[in-house]
Amino acid sequence: MGDDTQRWNELAAQIAVDSIRATTAAGSGHPTSSMSAAHLLAVLFADHLRFDVKAPDYRGNDRFVLSKGHAAPGLYATLKAIGAFDDDVLLSLRKEGSPLQGHPAPIPELPWVDVATGSLGQGLAAGLGMALAMRLDRIDARVWVMLGDSEMAEGSVWEAMEATSFHGAANVTAILDLNRLGQRGPTMHQWDADVFRDRALAFGWNALAIDGHDVDAIDDAYRTAETDDRPTMIIARTQKGHGVSFLENKEGWHGKAVPADQLDAAIEELGGMHDLVITPPAPVELPAEQHPSVPTTARPSYDGPVATRKAFGEALAWLATTNRDVVTLDGEVGNSTYTEDALAAAPDRFFELYIAEQTMIGVQTGLQALGKIAFAATFGAFLTRAADQIRMGAIGRADLRISGSHAGVSIGEDGPSQMAVEDLALFRALNGSTVLYPSDGASTVALVELMAGLEGISYLRTTREATPLLYGADDTFPVGGSKTLASSDTDAVTLVGAGVTLHECLAARDLLAETGISARVLDCYSVKPIDAGTLRSALDDTGVVLVVEDHRMEGGLGDAVLDALAATGPLSGRVRKLGVSQMPGSATPLELRAWAGIDAASIADAAREALGR
Amino acid sequence: MGDDTQRWNELAAQIAVDSIRATTAAGSGHPTSSMSAAHLLAVLFADHLRFDVKAPDYRGNDRFVLSKGHAAPGLYATLKAIGAFDDDVLLSLRKEGSPLQGHPAPIPELPWVDVATGSLGQGLAAGLGMALAMRLDRIDARVWVMLGDSEMAEGSVWEAMEATSFHGAANVTAILDLNRLGQRGPTMHQWDADVFRDRALAFGWNALAIDGHDVDAIDDAYRTAETDDRPTMIIARTQKGHGVSFLENKEGWHGKAVPADQLDAAIEELGGMHDLVITPPAPVELPAEQHPSVPTTARPSYDGPVATRKAFGEALAWLATTNRDVVTLDGEVGNSTYTEDALAAAPDRFFELYIAEQTMIGVQTGLQALGKIAFAATFGAFLTRAADQIRMGAIGRADLRISGSHAGVSIGEDGPSQMAVEDLALFRALNGSTVLYPSDGASTVALVELMAGLEGISYLRTTREATPLLYGADDTFPVGGSKTLASSDTDAVTLVGAGVTLHECLAARDLLAETGISARVLDCYSVKPIDAGTLRSALDDTGVVLVVEDHRMEGGLGDAVLDALAATGPLSGRVRKLGVSQMPGSATPLELRAWAGIDAASIADAAREALGR
Repeated sequence: MGDDTQRWNELAAQIAVDSIRATTAAGSGHPTSSMSAAHLLAVLFADHLRFDVKAPDYRGNDRFVLSKGHAAPGLYATLKAIGAFDDDVLLSLRKEGSPLQGHPAPIPELPWVDVATGSLGQGLAAGLGMALAMRLDRIDARVWVMLGDSEMAEGSVWEAMEATSFHGAANVTAILDLNRLGQRGPTMHQWDADVFRDRALAFGWNALAIDGHDVDAIDDAYRTAETDDRPTMIIARTQKGHGVSFLENKEGWHGKAVPADQLDAAIEELGGMHDLVITPPAPVELPAEQHPSVPTTARPSYDGPVATRKAFGEALAWLATTNRDVVTLDGEVGNSTYTEDALAAAPDRFFELYIAEQTMIGVQTGLQALGKIAFAATFGAFLTRAADQIRMGAIGRADLRISGSHAGVSIGEDGPSQMAVEDLALFRALNGSTVLYPSDGASTVALVELMAGLEGISYLRTTREATPLLYGADDTFPVGGSKTLASSDTDAVTLVGAGVTLHECLAARDLLAETGISARVLDCYSVKPIDAGTLRSALDDTGVVLVVEDHRMEGGLGDAVLDALAATGPLSGRVRKLGVSQMPGSATPLELRAWAGIDAASIADAAREALGR
Repeated sequence: MGDDTQRWNELAAQIAVDSIRATTAAGSGHPTSSMSAAHLLAVLFADHLRFDVKAPDYRGNDRFVLSKGHAAPGLYATLKAIGAFDDDVLLSLRKEGSPLQGHPAPIPELPWVDVATGSLGQGLAAGLGMALAMRLDRIDARVWVMLGDSEMAEGSVWEAMEATSFHGAANVTAILDLNRLGQRGPTMHQWDADVFRDRALAFGWNALAIDGHDVDAIDDAYRTAETDDRPTMIIARTQKGHGVSFLENKEGWHGKAVPADQLDAAIEELGGMHDLVITPPAPVELPAEQHPSVPTTARPSYDGPVATRKAFGEALAWLATTNRDVVTLDGEVGNSTYTEDALAAAPDRFFELYIAEQTMIGVQTGLQALGKIAFAATFGAFLTRAADQIRMGAIGRADLRISGSHAGVSIGEDGPSQMAVEDLALFRALNGSTVLYPSDGASTVALVELMAGLEGISYLRTTREATPLLYGADDTFPVGGSKTLASSDTDAVTLVGAGVTLHECLAARDLLAETGISARVLDCYSVKPIDAGTLRSALDDTGVVLVVEDHRMEGGLGDAVLDALAATGPLSGRVRKLGVSQMPGSATPLELRAWAGIDAASIADAAREALGR
């Protein structure tokens, strides 16, 4: 046995032992899913992952993504072995306040983790995003993604497989820990490595099958991956709980800690305690030159109606010329969301992900982890397909700038499958999210510009139809603000709109004026956070607030307004919500807004009814 | 040219002509995506799809699913050709009130469509669900699913491919309309049929590539599919806009109607108007015997604490023994959601979909379309992965009975990736949905029993930990109801909880009683629809309502309560929401509820603060 072989095996044993120790101390967790990966992790971190543990943010580092996030104890044990933290931290696993959560999350105290995992099938797309960031920055680094076999059933993995080969990301290596056992028993294909090799090859990858506990075979496979001109999948046959007789390849041990009274026996079978500290290979140098600049264009401005989706595309194109970190992602609808404008402005920073929204958001998560200001856009309805990736982005503190076009029933004839009417509910519910909904070209440009500097999930909702210009190019639209478009001392009712319904509210105000009713009109372009102070004043001043939205009644602007009013003091007066309460069909936008009761006439009627006139 | 050949070609030309006519009359739509599929549809409906157009609900019918839903005009033209409706209906496409929406939806006026499509990549899983329903009913029918090439980028397609071969559904045929052009230009693989053939083979399918405008080759391929013992994918190279020189294989014509002044020229190129009416082959007979019965078990009852997820599994297992149409679907977490109990009770009506939530919901949609009472369960957090399938289920009026376990921060140590804290927002926002959240074993059993009879999307939220018994086995829990667990004339505050927070509210009531404050406690087990009347009375009686939920502040129970109060009259008093407002980490359930401010002590503090005491 060579020196390397012995060192790798000792390190693997240490990772297995520490995985067991940490989970037993926690009383829960996934030791056996970590043990299957121990040799794969040991060889990777000892001799292939080029990584400076003292500078985890260094852009020249190789990156490791643990897509099978439940093997977190194995990752944490490995991070301890490379000196990221000490044994006390390791043994704080899963305890309140510990940086070591049950599944990895990139919190400030754990800077060695780049993206949150734990919802399966998401790591590979994030890895592709990192690889594309490296390409943009001309950095010759690599991305290693460890997958579990259960998660290979997730379609998101195959989306990402296709996108990775299509984009020629040969610096991505997938390590499949084929340990045969899922949470409840055997996986679909158990140890049949050929199934995965054939599929990976058919998806344009290099693929090879190895014994995942043979460190020399692992080393050889990593070397192959480092030199092949395709992305490489290493299918490693392993045993869950490897190295401990009562755990190894046994059912019933998923997500279970070894009981304290069996701990010593398990450690002894693994050769006892180890205390190796290793240093991974040094990362690559950064290139002197970064990606090329493009000619700067002028900030878009408008003097008439424009669709906010079009203004979004033009604003994004402009941003891309002013900031070389701005990247645009499309889900094969760039001619509808107008990200095609950004493609034209900065083609090298535009990535076509085709109709694969999960991959689009995963790639975005990877890009932002390496400092890119990535915008992703598709129809708002189709963002629902990536809801779990967006959720995980929030958990991972990712800065995801997302635009959803074709909001509401106002898209018209295409029908309900293409209408975003639940999108505000989706994005509002996310931790720390910002939800923006512009009504005209000027506010759109201002909000897109603002999104580039926002942290966390930010969502811009846009409209298919052209809407009239309401604002000037110099108007500002701070997050959490609102605009009062009409106000007087005699206002008997406040109409709250955003986006397309703001225009209906303005028209309703004219209708109400004809019958002697003065209406205040507020533009809540910032749905979250919302301008609670202005809303509270409006309720206090007018006694009646009508909120109008082209969205389902639940979870959208109306709920946001009610929440703000309830949070800012005692309730008094009347708050009514107008929104979509039935299932729409196909019709013209005007017909559909009338059908939903959110057109000007319906708003005016509702106001009169609320006022008893 | 044989008689069949001529007839098929004429029918294909008619389908193309009618697709153009209908979209030109509508002024929008997708004629070219319909024209590429015209020959495939013609041969299928003329001689392979065994279907009684007068009895679309007949369970012996073969089924057709248009996964590429934007080719709806082609489907509608085909349905006209088999006598489903007349030309006037065809020409009502996309108009208000027409049954022919921009994308197919199974509304009552269009009984020839079984599931809604239009969000790409969803048809195959629904087709698999139909095939499994046929298997359960011992019906020798087939399912034909037409896919577009753009949607092959969706991971959901590959999930469904795997599940279809794994479950041995040889009666499923996928027809891939490889027309090379997506919405914005060429697809990733254009006309490279080999890519898809290799992948389909690697996913366990039979696969063959043909010229999709050669009707004899199409007929041969369908015959092959009908006899192969694997599911078959027919990769048909086609031309978008086939048959009209100015449309054929041209970019820039996606989703565009032919202008009225070019209509005659287009029709002339296709050989003019046709008026064929064809009769598809007769469907198969139903078997005399249906699937076997299993021994009936007793309705579960409890005399102490139980986890509601466990009670769900036991109730579902019981239901499966009492109703032979009850089917259970698992996403490889059956030992956590306790659907493993249903597996034990009725193994032939349990389908393991592995970690493929999108396919799980798609299969459920297909099963219910053929009359099955299908329950699907996974962690509530992971239902987010299938959010778009659930959304499409609502559009398709599907009866989807879904349980999400491991709700809230109360799961504890596993951390935020496993916590459902946005699930109520997701399910509340859906049209016609029912959202239920039991707090103990008895209410869980009652609500699961009730779900079996509900229409639309119904969601049951369950808790990981055991919770004390609150109710008797005879208590009823109607949809839209609530339970008042504590009430007096001197109540100064109302505490509204559901699920795990109901128990915290009860404990908070005891704490408040110690300081002389009497609190009413309401169990809003029916989050949607919610018991607005009881909530209104509580606000009127007590003046202060505190809503406590183990969910994000947005879109959940708190918003539901505010909405109900705002909808039932003028607001007065104080409504406060307690919920999850920051990003949780790992800790014990008790620690996390205290951290979130939703444990008994926090509730009591908030009540005192609201009362100014």
